[in-house]
Amino acid sequence: MAHILLLSNSTAPGRAYLEHAREILAETLDGVAAVAFVPYALADLDAYTATVAAALAPFGVTTHGVHESRNVLSDSGAVFVGGGNTFRLVKRLHEEGLIGTIRDAVGAGVPYIGSSAGTNVACPKISTTNDMPIVEPPSFDALRLVPFQINPHYVDPDPASIHQGETRQERIQQYLEENPGPVLGMREGTWLTSNGAGGALGGIAAGARLFTRSGESEIAPGTDLGHLWRARP
Amino acid sequence: MAHILLLSNSTAPGRAYLEHAREILAETLDGVAAVAFVPYALADLDAYTATVAAALAPFGVTTHGVHESRNVLSDSGAVFVGGGNTFRLVKRLHEEGLIGTIRDAVGAGVPYIGSSAGTNVACPKISTTNDMPIVEPPSFDALRLVPFQINPHYVDPDPASIHQGETRQERIQQYLEENPGPVLGMREGTWLTSNGAGGALGGIAAGARLFTRSGESEIAPGTDLGHLWRARP
Repeated sequence: MAHILLLSNSTAPGRAYLEHAREILAETLDGVAAVAFVPYALADLDAYTATVAAALAPFGVTTHGVHESRNVLSDSGAVFVGGGNTFRLVKRLHEEGLIGTIRDAVGAGVPYIGSSAGTNVACPKISTTNDMPIVEPPSFDALRLVPFQINPHYVDPDPASIHQGETRQERIQQYLEENPGPVLGMREGTWLTSNGAGGALGGIAAGARLFTRSGESEIAPGTDLGHLWRARP
Repeated sequence: MAHILLLSNSTAPGRAYLEHAREILAETLDGVAAVAFVPYALADLDAYTATVAAALAPFGVTTHGVHESRNVLSDSGAVFVGGGNTFRLVKRLHEEGLIGTIRDAVGAGVPYIGSSAGTNVACPKISTTNDMPIVEPPSFDALRLVPFQINPHYVDPDPASIHQGETRQERIQQYLEENPGPVLGMREGTWLTSNGAGGALGGIAAGARLFTRSGESEIAPGTDLGHLWRARP
């Protein structure tokens, strides 16, 4: 039973917040009554929590922000970490002592749903985020719910572009110059499900791109990714 | 006399490395015989140094990488910090003790030329870089050669894009939620010249976009930016 759901992004074009992932969200939240929402990636914690509470209400769950009271996490049957800025998010996770608390809860089987920055922080480090380092966290260490790095919102190089900044592919190749990898570049509309010891790709046909030091490969939805749990650099 | 030259990017489409900025580079390097190149933003230090040495040779200067010997910096009449990954660059600047050394040299009048990541590290912090945090530096603190933040390779939001990741504008707005600003978004082909106490924008007509907590404004090439030195948040 996959209790970890990592979404590349929260909103598909022309659809409502989380709508594109409705079925997999329903599966992951099956039997859950209350969700603890972690809103720290955005500035307005109450507004963000209200948005997510409304989007999750159709799944039959009530949602409370972890900033509202110390008991929200322990009183909830699942954790949702929303997108925004990954540096702001991981800084608050460290400051609020949530890194260990969330990791322990998910290790004990509590469902974890992450989107965008919430997917970044499910990795060992935040080192493959696309976000601007607007604040300085005490550490790049994150939740390590999966043993490899993910790049959410992965976009392929655009051959028509005249922009001189690095492509996403080049940025990930630079990551691999400094770290063993692998990095799973998840295109928008895809997600990863995991039971903590293995996992699979889901979502739209565009799939994902896997970057290792020995090369790149395409990953189609439905592909078992268990080898990423067994690989040790 | 402006001795600080901060380029948004190193290569314009269809032109050779640094070619688009030839005139302003010649002005900045006037009277300089030897340039100390800081190659730490890329992985291959020797290859990067060779590229830059060849590009700067027409200006009548010899170029050596600061990784080659301890004396390169003190033996040179100017410092050039090249682009690549800003996190990798600032990590090495701290580790090699170059933050204070370069800041002191530039404060004493030694010309500084930065491109892309080399422009990011001329700011107080690296917090407005576009780069992926592939390594964890001991600090986000940088050279503070100018008292405000710059975003190199600034790109305007693309109204036709269906990509759900944040636009550059949104990322800078998130920066301003957490920091007082301002941030100068320098479009490709532009540069900033400074004498350490003031400065001006140069480069192509597209210019720059200035982000403050009270709003955004367009900056045309030739505009005096002295108010950015006098503004105190």
